[in-house]
Amino acid sequence: MSAAPETRDTILGGRVVLLQPKDGYRAGVDPVFLAASVGARPGQSVLDLGCGAGAASLCLGRRVAGLRLTGLERQPVYAELARRNAIENGLAFEVVEGDLSDMPTHLRQRSFDHVIANPPYFRRDRSLRARDAAREGAMGEETPLSDWVAAAARRCAPRGTVTFINRVDRLPEMLAAFESCLGSLELFPLIPREGRESQLFLLRGRKEGRAAFRLHRGLVVHAGSTHEGDRVDYTPAASAILSDGAAMPFCGPVIES
Amino acid sequence: MSAAPETRDTILGGRVVLLQPKDGYRAGVDPVFLAASVGARPGQSVLDLGCGAGAASLCLGRRVAGLRLTGLERQPVYAELARRNAIENGLAFEVVEGDLSDMPTHLRQRSFDHVIANPPYFRRDRSLRARDAAREGAMGEETPLSDWVAAAARRCAPRGTVTFINRVDRLPEMLAAFESCLGSLELFPLIPREGRESQLFLLRGRKEGRAAFRLHRGLVVHAGSTHEGDRVDYTPAASAILSDGAAMPFCGPVIES
Repeated sequence: MSAAPETRDTILGGRVVLLQPKDGYRAGVDPVFLAASVGARPGQSVLDLGCGAGAASLCLGRRVAGLRLTGLERQPVYAELARRNAIENGLAFEVVEGDLSDMPTHLRQRSFDHVIANPPYFRRDRSLRARDAAREGAMGEETPLSDWVAAAARRCAPRGTVTFINRVDRLPEMLAAFESCLGSLELFPLIPREGRESQLFLLRGRKEGRAAFRLHRGLVVHAGSTHEGDRVDYTPAASAILSDGAAMPFCGPVIES
Repeated sequence: MSAAPETRDTILGGRVVLLQPKDGYRAGVDPVFLAASVGARPGQSVLDLGCGAGAASLCLGRRVAGLRLTGLERQPVYAELARRNAIENGLAFEVVEGDLSDMPTHLRQRSFDHVIANPPYFRRDRSLRARDAAREGAMGEETPLSDWVAAAARRCAPRGTVTFINRVDRLPEMLAAFESCLGSLELFPLIPREGRESQLFLLRGRKEGRAAFRLHRGLVVHAGSTHEGDRVDYTPAASAILSDGAAMPFCGPVIES
Protein backbone atom coordinates (compact mmCIF):
# COMPACT_ATOMS: atom_id res chain seq x y z
CA MET A 1 0.00 0.00 0.00
CA SER A 2 2.52 2.54 1.17
CA ALA A 3 6.26 2.33 1.49
CA ALA A 4 6.14 4.74 4.43
CA PRO A 5 7.93 3.35 7.46
CA GLU A 6 5.62 2.07 10.17
CA THR A 7 5.91 0.90 13.76
CA ARG A 8 4.30 -1.96 15.61
CA ASP A 9 3.11 -0.76 19.01
CA THR A 10 0.86 -2.16 21.67
CA ILE A 11 -1.78 -0.28 23.64
CA LEU A 12 -4.28 -1.23 26.34
CA GLY A 13 -1.60 -2.99 28.38
CA GLY A 14 -0.52 -5.10 25.41
CA ARG A 15 -4.10 -6.19 24.62
CA VAL A 16 -4.17 -4.37 21.28
CA VAL A 17 -1.46 -4.36 18.62
CA LEU A 18 -1.30 -1.19 16.58
CA LEU A 19 0.58 -0.74 13.31
CA GLN A 20 1.07 2.97 12.78
CA PRO A 21 2.98 5.19 10.37
CA LYS A 22 6.27 6.13 11.98
CA ASP A 23 5.99 9.80 11.03
CA GLY A 24 2.28 10.41 10.64
CA TYR A 25 -0.50 10.80 13.18
CA ARG A 26 0.13 8.39 16.06
CA ALA A 27 -2.47 7.35 18.58
CA GLY A 28 -2.00 8.53 22.15
CA VAL A 29 -4.22 7.80 25.10
CA ASP A 30 -7.14 9.69 23.56
CA PRO A 31 -8.67 6.85 21.48
CA VAL A 32 -8.26 4.53 24.46
CA PHE A 33 -10.26 6.89 26.68
CA LEU A 34 -12.82 7.32 23.91
CA ALA A 35 -13.28 3.55 23.60
CA ALA A 36 -13.51 3.16 27.38
CA SER A 37 -16.39 5.65 27.52
CA VAL A 38 -18.78 3.74 25.26
CA GLY A 39 -21.46 1.69 27.02
CA ALA A 40 -21.82 -0.83 24.22
CA ARG A 41 -23.03 -4.38 24.75
CA PRO A 42 -22.42 -7.53 22.74
CA GLY A 43 -24.22 -7.54 19.40
CA GLN A 44 -24.48 -3.78 19.11
CA SER A 45 -23.09 -1.80 16.19
CA VAL A 46 -20.49 0.97 16.39
CA LEU A 47 -19.38 3.49 13.77
CA ASP A 48 -15.95 5.11 14.24
CA LEU A 49 -15.82 8.32 12.17
CA GLY A 50 -12.31 9.14 10.97
CA CYS A 51 -11.01 5.92 12.50
CA GLY A 52 -7.37 6.38 11.48
CA ALA A 53 -5.42 3.17 12.13
CA GLY A 54 -8.34 1.90 14.20
CA ALA A 55 -7.11 2.39 17.77
CA ALA A 56 -10.47 3.34 19.32
CA SER A 57 -12.51 0.63 17.59
CA LEU A 58 -9.96 -2.07 18.36
CA CYS A 59 -9.82 -1.10 22.06
CA LEU A 60 -13.60 -1.15 22.21
CA GLY A 61 -13.76 -4.50 20.41
CA ARG A 62 -11.25 -5.91 22.86
CA ARG A 63 -13.31 -4.81 25.89
CA VAL A 64 -16.76 -5.75 24.61
CA ALA A 65 -17.04 -9.02 22.71
CA GLY A 66 -19.32 -9.47 19.71
CA LEU A 67 -19.61 -5.86 18.56
CA ARG A 68 -20.21 -5.06 14.92
CA LEU A 69 -17.45 -2.48 14.33
CA THR A 70 -17.30 -0.17 11.33
CA GLY A 71 -14.78 2.58 10.65
CA LEU A 72 -14.85 5.38 8.11
CA GLU A 73 -11.49 6.79 7.05
CA ARG A 74 -10.74 9.34 4.36
CA GLN A 75 -7.04 8.62 3.92
CA PRO A 76 -6.21 5.33 2.12
CA VAL A 77 -2.97 4.80 4.03
CA TYR A 78 -4.79 4.82 7.38
CA ALA A 79 -7.73 2.80 6.08
CA GLU A 80 -5.32 0.09 4.94
CA LEU A 81 -3.49 0.14 8.28
CA ALA A 82 -6.83 -0.18 10.08
CA ARG A 83 -7.69 -3.27 8.03
CA ARG A 84 -4.32 -4.84 8.78
CA ASN A 85 -4.70 -3.95 12.47
CA ALA A 86 -8.07 -5.70 12.56
CA ILE A 87 -6.41 -8.87 11.27
CA GLU A 88 -3.44 -8.49 13.63
CA ASN A 89 -5.86 -8.35 16.55
CA GLY A 90 -8.28 -10.98 15.32
CA LEU A 91 -11.17 -8.55 15.52
CA ALA A 92 -13.96 -8.11 12.96
CA PHE A 93 -13.66 -4.47 11.91
CA GLU A 94 -15.10 -3.27 8.62
CA VAL A 95 -13.16 -0.28 7.31
CA VAL A 96 -14.83 1.94 4.73
CA GLU A 97 -12.78 4.43 2.75
CA GLY A 98 -14.58 7.71 2.30
CA ASP A 99 -15.30 11.21 3.49
CA LEU A 100 -17.84 11.85 6.22
CA SER A 101 -19.28 14.79 4.34
CA ASP A 102 -19.85 12.55 1.30
CA MET A 103 -20.37 9.10 2.78
CA PRO A 104 -20.58 6.02 0.55
CA THR A 105 -24.22 5.15 -0.12
CA HIS A 106 -24.10 1.77 1.59
CA LEU A 107 -23.01 3.52 4.80
CA ARG A 108 -25.63 6.24 4.49
CA GLN A 109 -28.31 3.55 4.47
CA ARG A 110 -27.29 2.17 7.86
CA SER A 111 -27.65 3.33 11.43
CA PHE A 112 -25.54 2.41 14.46
CA ASP A 113 -26.13 1.98 18.18
CA HIS A 114 -23.04 4.02 18.95
CA VAL A 115 -21.05 6.52 16.92
CA ILE A 116 -17.62 7.65 18.13
CA ALA A 117 -15.08 10.14 16.82
CA ASN A 118 -11.76 11.70 17.69
CA PRO A 119 -11.78 14.58 15.18
CA PRO A 120 -8.71 16.67 14.32
CA TYR A 121 -7.72 18.89 17.23
CA PHE A 122 -6.44 21.91 15.40
CA ARG A 123 -8.33 24.45 13.42
CA ARG A 124 -6.80 24.80 10.01
CA ASP A 125 -7.25 28.56 10.07
CA ARG A 126 -5.44 28.93 13.40
CA SER A 127 -2.49 26.56 13.16
CA LEU A 128 0.51 25.76 11.06
CA ARG A 129 0.20 22.86 8.64
CA ALA A 130 2.08 19.69 9.48
CA ARG A 131 4.87 18.88 7.05
CA ASP A 132 3.72 15.28 6.65
CA ALA A 133 0.63 15.27 4.43
CA ALA A 134 -1.07 12.29 6.09
CA ARG A 135 -0.32 13.63 9.55
CA GLU A 136 -1.74 16.96 8.45
CA GLY A 137 -4.91 15.26 7.27
CA ALA A 138 -5.31 13.51 10.61
CA MET A 139 -4.38 16.44 12.85
CA GLY A 140 -5.61 19.46 10.95
CA GLU A 141 -9.16 20.13 10.06
CA GLU A 142 -10.72 20.24 6.65
CA THR A 143 -14.24 19.45 7.76
CA PRO A 144 -15.91 21.72 10.35
CA LEU A 145 -16.64 20.07 13.70
CA SER A 146 -20.34 20.74 13.21
CA ASP A 147 -20.24 18.53 10.09
CA TRP A 148 -18.63 15.72 12.09
CA VAL A 149 -21.36 15.95 14.71
CA ALA A 150 -24.18 16.20 12.16
CA ALA A 151 -22.85 13.17 10.27
CA ALA A 152 -22.56 11.22 13.53
CA ALA A 153 -26.11 12.13 14.57
CA ARG A 154 -27.49 11.12 11.17
CA ARG A 155 -25.88 7.68 11.39
CA CYS A 156 -26.97 7.16 15.00
CA ALA A 157 -30.00 4.96 15.73
CA PRO A 158 -32.83 6.37 17.88
CA ARG A 159 -31.75 6.27 21.57
CA GLY A 160 -28.23 5.48 20.42
CA THR A 161 -25.19 7.44 21.63
CA VAL A 162 -22.69 9.74 19.96
CA THR A 163 -19.41 10.25 21.82
CA PHE A 164 -16.59 12.57 20.79
CA ILE A 165 -13.22 13.36 22.35
CA ASN A 166 -11.53 16.68 21.66
CA ARG A 167 -9.47 19.52 23.11
CA VAL A 168 -11.06 21.86 25.61
CA ASP A 169 -10.62 24.93 23.42
CA ARG A 170 -13.15 23.38 21.04
CA LEU A 171 -15.75 22.70 23.73
CA PRO A 172 -18.10 25.65 23.09
CA GLU A 173 -18.23 24.82 19.38
CA MET A 174 -18.69 21.12 20.03
CA LEU A 175 -21.38 21.64 22.64
CA ALA A 176 -23.36 23.89 20.30
CA ALA A 177 -23.11 21.28 17.55
CA PHE A 178 -24.29 18.49 19.88
CA GLU A 179 -27.14 20.66 21.19
CA SER A 180 -28.41 21.19 17.67
CA CYS A 181 -28.98 17.51 16.88
CA LEU A 182 -28.70 15.39 20.03
CA GLY A 183 -30.10 15.35 23.57
CA SER A 184 -29.18 14.13 27.08
CA LEU A 185 -25.71 15.64 26.75
CA GLU A 186 -23.00 14.67 29.24
CA LEU A 187 -19.61 16.29 29.57
CA PHE A 188 -16.72 14.39 31.11
CA PRO A 189 -13.46 16.33 31.58
CA LEU A 190 -10.06 14.65 31.39
CA ILE A 191 -7.70 16.39 33.78
CA PRO A 192 -3.92 16.00 33.39
CA ARG A 193 -3.27 16.25 37.15
CA GLU A 194 -5.37 17.07 40.21
CA GLY A 195 -6.00 20.79 40.50
CA ARG A 196 -5.07 21.50 36.87
CA GLU A 197 -7.33 22.71 34.13
CA SER A 198 -8.85 20.16 31.81
CA GLN A 199 -7.14 19.78 28.42
CA LEU A 200 -9.38 17.18 26.83
CA PHE A 201 -13.01 16.27 27.22
CA LEU A 202 -15.44 13.56 26.29
CA LEU A 203 -18.89 14.66 25.21
CA ARG A 204 -21.79 12.27 24.77
CA GLY A 205 -25.25 12.85 23.41
CA ARG A 206 -28.19 10.58 22.84
CA LYS A 207 -30.34 10.66 19.74
CA GLU A 208 -33.81 11.80 20.77
CA GLY A 209 -32.56 12.10 24.37
CA ARG A 210 -34.44 14.51 26.64
CA ALA A 211 -32.50 14.40 29.91
CA ALA A 212 -30.90 17.51 31.41
CA PHE A 213 -27.28 18.35 30.65
CA ARG A 214 -24.80 16.73 33.05
CA LEU A 215 -21.30 17.85 34.01
CA HIS A 216 -19.26 15.00 35.48
CA ARG A 217 -16.34 15.43 37.83
CA GLY A 218 -14.08 13.78 35.27
CA LEU A 219 -10.95 11.67 35.39
CA VAL A 220 -7.52 12.72 36.63
CA VAL A 221 -4.95 11.06 34.39
CA HIS A 222 -1.64 11.53 36.18
CA ALA A 223 -0.85 11.25 39.88
CA GLY A 224 1.32 13.72 41.76
CA SER A 225 1.88 17.34 41.03
CA THR A 226 4.64 17.13 38.42
CA HIS A 227 5.88 14.63 35.89
CA GLU A 228 8.79 12.67 37.35
CA GLY A 229 11.10 11.78 34.50
CA ASP A 230 10.09 8.74 32.52
CA ARG A 231 8.24 7.06 35.36
CA VAL A 232 4.70 6.15 34.43
CA ASP A 233 2.58 7.97 36.98
CA TYR A 234 -1.02 7.26 35.98
CA THR A 235 -3.66 7.45 38.67
CA PRO A 236 -5.20 4.06 39.58
CA ALA A 237 -8.40 5.02 37.71
CA ALA A 238 -6.49 6.00 34.55
CA SER A 239 -4.27 2.95 34.79
CA ALA A 240 -7.28 0.64 35.02
CA ILE A 241 -8.49 2.06 31.71
CA LEU A 242 -5.20 2.40 29.86
CA SER A 243 -3.43 -0.74 31.06
CA ASP A 244 -6.16 -3.12 32.21
CA GLY A 245 -8.80 -2.33 29.59
CA ALA A 246 -11.45 -1.22 32.09
CA ALA A 247 -14.51 0.83 31.19
CA MET A 248 -14.73 4.44 32.30
CA PRO A 249 -16.85 5.67 35.15
CA PHE A 250 -18.37 7.85 32.41
CA CYS A 251 -19.38 4.73 30.50
CA GLY A 252 -23.16 5.07 30.69
CA PRO A 253 -25.72 2.39 31.32
CA VAL A 254 -25.92 -0.18 28.58
CA ILE A 255 -28.80 0.67 26.27
CA GLU A 256 -30.86 -1.99 24.57
CA SER A 257 -30.77 -1.63 20.83
CA MET B 1 -42.53 49.48 51.75
CA SER B 2 -43.97 46.05 52.26
CA ALA B 3 -45.64 44.47 55.24
CA ALA B 4 -44.25 41.08 54.24
CA PRO B 5 -42.33 39.48 57.13
CA GLU B 6 -38.58 39.59 56.73
CA THR B 7 -35.56 38.09 58.43
CA ARG B 8 -32.22 39.54 59.38
CA ASP B 9 -29.46 37.08 58.48
CA THR B 10 -25.71 37.28 58.20
CA ILE B 11 -23.55 35.78 55.48
CA LEU B 12 -19.82 35.76 54.74
CA GLY B 13 -19.03 34.67 58.30
CA GLY B 14 -21.03 37.54 59.78
CA ARG B 15 -19.33 40.14 57.56
CA VAL B 16 -22.52 40.98 55.67
CA VAL B 17 -25.98 41.55 57.15
CA LEU B 18 -28.83 40.57 54.88
CA LEU B 19 -32.46 41.55 55.33
CA GLN B 20 -34.53 39.13 53.31
CA PRO B 21 -38.21 38.33 52.85
CA LYS B 22 -39.10 35.43 55.11
CA ASP B 23 -41.05 33.60 52.45
CA GLY B 24 -39.64 34.84 49.16
CA TYR B 25 -36.41 34.08 47.37
CA ARG B 26 -33.63 33.74 49.94
CA ALA B 27 -29.95 33.92 49.16
CA GLY B 28 -27.93 30.74 49.55
CA VAL B 29 -24.23 30.29 48.96
CA ASP B 30 -24.59 31.07 45.25
CA PRO B 31 -24.28 34.88 45.39
CA VAL B 32 -21.34 34.49 47.78
CA PHE B 33 -19.51 32.28 45.29
CA LEU B 34 -20.41 34.66 42.49
CA ALA B 35 -18.97 37.62 44.41
CA ALA B 36 -15.82 35.65 45.28
CA SER B 37 -15.15 34.98 41.60
CA VAL B 38 -14.87 38.59 40.48
CA GLY B 39 -11.34 39.93 40.09
CA ALA B 40 -12.32 43.54 40.77
CA ARG B 41 -9.92 46.12 42.15
CA PRO B 42 -10.57 49.29 44.13
CA GLY B 43 -12.14 52.04 42.06
CA GLN B 44 -13.67 49.73 39.47
CA SER B 45 -17.36 49.65 38.67
CA VAL B 46 -19.64 46.63 38.99
CA LEU B 47 -23.18 46.07 37.71
CA ASP B 48 -25.25 43.35 39.40
CA LEU B 49 -28.12 42.36 37.08
CA GLY B 50 -31.20 41.18 38.98
CA CYS B 51 -29.48 41.96 42.27
CA GLY B 52 -32.36 40.84 44.52
CA ALA B 53 -31.67 41.90 48.11
CA GLY B 54 -28.08 42.63 47.13
CA ALA B 55 -26.21 39.63 48.54
CA ALA B 56 -23.62 39.30 45.74
CA SER B 57 -22.82 43.02 45.49
CA LEU B 58 -22.56 43.42 49.25
CA CYS B 59 -20.20 40.43 49.55
CA LEU B 60 -18.07 41.83 46.74
CA GLY B 61 -18.08 45.30 48.32
CA ARG B 62 -16.98 43.80 51.63
CA ARG B 63 -14.04 41.96 50.04
CA VAL B 64 -12.82 44.74 47.73
CA ALA B 65 -12.87 48.26 49.13
CA GLY B 66 -13.78 51.28 47.02
CA LEU B 67 -15.85 49.63 44.34
CA ARG B 68 -18.62 51.54 42.59
CA LEU B 69 -21.47 49.07 42.96
CA THR B 70 -24.74 49.28 41.01
CA GLY B 71 -27.63 46.83 41.09
CA LEU B 72 -30.60 46.50 38.75
CA GLU B 73 -33.71 44.89 40.19
CA ARG B 74 -37.13 44.50 38.62
CA GLN B 75 -39.13 43.84 41.77
CA PRO B 76 -39.67 46.88 44.02
CA VAL B 77 -39.74 44.84 47.23
CA TYR B 78 -36.25 43.45 46.55
CA ALA B 79 -34.90 46.78 45.29
CA GLU B 80 -36.00 48.40 48.54
CA LEU B 81 -34.45 45.61 50.61
CA ALA B 82 -31.22 46.00 48.67
CA ARG B 83 -31.14 49.74 49.50
CA ARG B 84 -31.75 49.03 53.17
CA ASN B 85 -29.09 46.31 53.13
CA ALA B 86 -26.58 48.75 51.67
CA ILE B 87 -27.23 51.08 54.61
CA GLU B 88 -27.14 48.23 57.13
CA ASN B 89 -23.70 47.27 55.84
CA GLY B 90 -22.37 50.77 55.39
CA LEU B 91 -21.61 50.09 51.73
CA ALA B 92 -22.24 52.44 48.80
CA PHE B 93 -24.57 50.47 46.55
CA GLU B 94 -26.77 52.21 44.01
CA VAL B 95 -29.93 50.22 43.36
CA VAL B 96 -31.86 50.94 40.16
CA GLU B 97 -35.38 49.64 39.75
CA GLY B 98 -36.00 48.37 36.26
CA ASP B 99 -36.09 45.50 33.82
CA LEU B 100 -32.92 44.36 32.10
CA SER B 101 -34.72 44.05 28.79
CA ASP B 102 -35.85 47.67 29.08
CA MET B 103 -33.14 49.35 31.13
CA PRO B 104 -33.54 52.91 32.38
CA THR B 105 -31.80 55.32 30.01
CA HIS B 106 -29.26 56.56 32.56
CA LEU B 107 -28.08 52.95 33.01
CA ARG B 108 -27.96 52.29 29.27
CA GLN B 109 -25.55 55.18 28.90
CA ARG B 110 -22.99 53.66 31.25
CA SER B 111 -20.53 50.81 31.03
CA PHE B 112 -19.00 48.76 33.85
CA ASP B 113 -15.70 47.01 34.47
CA HIS B 114 -17.52 43.93 35.72
CA VAL B 115 -21.06 42.69 35.24
CA ILE B 116 -22.39 39.87 37.42
CA ALA B 117 -25.67 37.97 37.52
CA ASN B 118 -27.36 35.08 39.25
CA PRO B 119 -30.37 34.66 36.93
CA PRO B 120 -33.43 32.55 37.79
CA TYR B 121 -32.61 28.86 37.78
CA PHE B 122 -35.83 27.39 36.51
CA ARG B 123 -37.35 27.61 33.09
CA ARG B 124 -40.88 28.86 33.35
CA ASP B 125 -42.05 26.45 30.68
CA ARG B 126 -40.62 23.44 32.52
CA SER B 127 -41.41 24.07 36.17
CA LEU B 128 -44.29 24.75 38.50
CA ARG B 129 -44.85 28.34 39.55
CA ALA B 130 -43.96 29.27 43.10
CA ARG B 131 -46.94 30.27 45.22
CA ASP B 132 -45.24 33.42 46.46
CA ALA B 133 -45.31 35.99 43.65
CA ALA B 134 -42.00 37.66 44.51
CA ARG B 135 -40.30 34.31 45.01
CA GLU B 136 -41.68 33.25 41.66
CA GLY B 137 -40.25 36.36 40.03
CA ALA B 138 -36.84 35.65 41.52
CA MET B 139 -36.75 31.91 40.89
CA GLY B 140 -38.71 31.47 37.69
CA GLU B 141 -37.76 32.96 34.40
CA GLU B 142 -39.57 35.56 32.41
CA THR B 143 -36.56 36.80 30.47
CA PRO B 144 -34.58 34.29 28.36
CA LEU B 145 -31.02 33.64 29.54
CA SER B 146 -29.69 34.91 26.23
CA ASP B 147 -31.27 38.32 26.99
CA TRP B 148 -29.52 38.41 30.37
CA VAL B 149 -26.18 37.69 28.72
CA ALA B 150 -26.72 40.16 25.88
CA ALA B 151 -27.70 42.89 28.36
CA ALA B 152 -24.63 42.13 30.47
CA ALA B 153 -22.32 42.23 27.46
CA ARG B 154 -23.78 45.55 26.29
CA ARG B 155 -23.15 47.15 29.68
CA CYS B 156 -19.64 45.71 29.96
CA ALA B 157 -16.65 47.93 29.18
CA PRO B 158 -14.07 46.74 26.62
CA ARG B 159 -11.80 44.13 28.31
CA GLY B 160 -14.24 44.02 31.22
CA THR B 161 -15.65 40.75 32.55
CA VAL B 162 -19.12 39.24 32.67
CA THR B 163 -19.64 36.48 35.26
CA PHE B 164 -22.81 34.42 35.73
CA ILE B 165 -23.69 31.63 38.12
CA ASN B 166 -26.38 29.12 37.22
CA ARG B 167 -27.47 25.49 37.33
CA VAL B 168 -25.62 22.95 35.22
CA ASP B 169 -28.69 22.01 33.19
CA ARG B 170 -28.57 25.53 31.72
CA LEU B 171 -24.88 25.33 30.75
CA PRO B 172 -25.27 24.60 27.02
CA GLU B 173 -27.70 27.49 26.63
CA MET B 174 -25.55 29.83 28.71
CA LEU B 175 -22.34 28.90 26.91
CA ALA B 176 -23.93 29.54 23.52
CA ALA B 177 -25.15 32.94 24.73
CA PHE B 178 -21.69 33.88 26.06
CA GLU B 179 -20.03 32.66 22.85
CA SER B 180 -22.23 34.95 20.79
CA CYS B 181 -21.12 38.20 22.44
CA LEU B 182 -18.06 37.61 24.65
CA GLY B 183 -14.61 35.99 24.39
CA SER B 184 -11.97 34.32 26.59
CA LEU B 185 -14.64 32.16 28.21
CA GLU B 186 -13.80 30.26 31.39
CA LEU B 187 -15.97 27.63 33.03
CA PHE B 188 -15.60 26.88 36.74
CA PRO B 189 -17.71 23.99 38.10
CA LEU B 190 -19.00 23.98 41.67
CA ILE B 191 -19.10 20.39 42.91
CA PRO B 192 -21.24 19.45 45.93
CA ARG B 193 -18.84 16.69 47.07
CA GLU B 194 -15.73 15.06 45.63
CA GLY B 195 -16.62 12.57 42.91
CA ARG B 196 -20.12 13.95 42.41
CA GLU B 197 -21.47 15.69 39.35
CA SER B 198 -21.44 19.44 39.28
CA GLN B 199 -24.78 21.12 40.09
CA LEU B 200 -23.80 24.77 39.65
CA PHE B 201 -21.23 26.55 37.54
CA LEU B 202 -19.61 29.94 37.18
CA LEU B 203 -19.03 31.15 33.64
CA ARG B 204 -16.91 34.19 32.84
CA GLY B 205 -16.33 35.96 29.56
CA ARG B 206 -14.35 38.99 28.61
CA LYS B 207 -15.60 41.67 26.27
CA GLU B 208 -13.43 41.58 23.16
CA GLY B 209 -11.47 38.68 24.68
CA ARG B 210 -9.69 36.35 22.28
CA ALA B 211 -8.18 33.67 24.50
CA ALA B 212 -9.08 29.99 24.12
CA PHE B 213 -11.90 28.50 26.18
CA ARG B 214 -10.76 27.18 29.58
CA LEU B 215 -12.31 24.48 31.75
CA HIS B 216 -11.19 24.76 35.36
CA ARG B 217 -11.11 21.89 37.82
CA GLY B 218 -13.62 23.71 40.00
CA LEU B 219 -14.35 23.89 43.70
CA VAL B 220 -15.64 21.07 45.91
CA VAL B 221 -18.06 22.61 48.41
CA HIS B 222 -18.64 19.89 51.01
CA ALA B 223 -16.13 17.51 52.58
CA GLY B 224 -16.80 13.82 53.11
CA SER B 225 -19.06 11.58 51.12
CA THR B 226 -22.41 12.27 52.80
CA HIS B 227 -24.02 15.06 54.73
CA GLU B 228 -23.71 14.38 58.46
CA GLY B 229 -26.74 15.87 60.17
CA ASP B 230 -26.51 19.58 60.83
CA ARG B 231 -22.75 19.65 61.08
CA VAL B 232 -21.24 22.24 58.74
CA ASP B 233 -18.89 20.24 56.56
CA TYR B 234 -17.47 22.72 54.08
CA THR B 235 -14.10 21.96 52.54
CA PRO B 236 -11.30 24.32 53.66
CA ALA B 237 -11.41 26.03 50.23
CA ALA B 238 -15.17 26.58 50.39
CA SER B 239 -15.01 27.67 54.01
CA ALA B 240 -12.36 30.28 53.21
CA ILE B 241 -14.77 31.82 50.70
CA LEU B 242 -18.04 31.44 52.59
CA SER B 243 -16.86 32.19 56.13
CA ASP B 244 -13.64 34.16 55.77
CA GLY B 245 -14.53 36.24 52.71
CA ALA B 246 -11.67 34.96 50.56
CA ALA B 247 -11.53 35.30 46.78
CA MET B 248 -11.94 32.21 44.63
CA PRO B 249 -9.11 30.44 42.87
CA PHE B 250 -11.22 31.21 39.79
CA CYS B 251 -10.95 34.91 40.53
CA GLY B 252 -8.95 36.02 37.52
CA PRO B 253 -6.10 38.49 37.34
CA VAL B 254 -7.09 42.02 38.17
CA ILE B 255 -7.66 43.96 34.98
CA GLU B 256 -6.81 47.62 34.65
CA SER B 257 -9.83 49.63 33.70
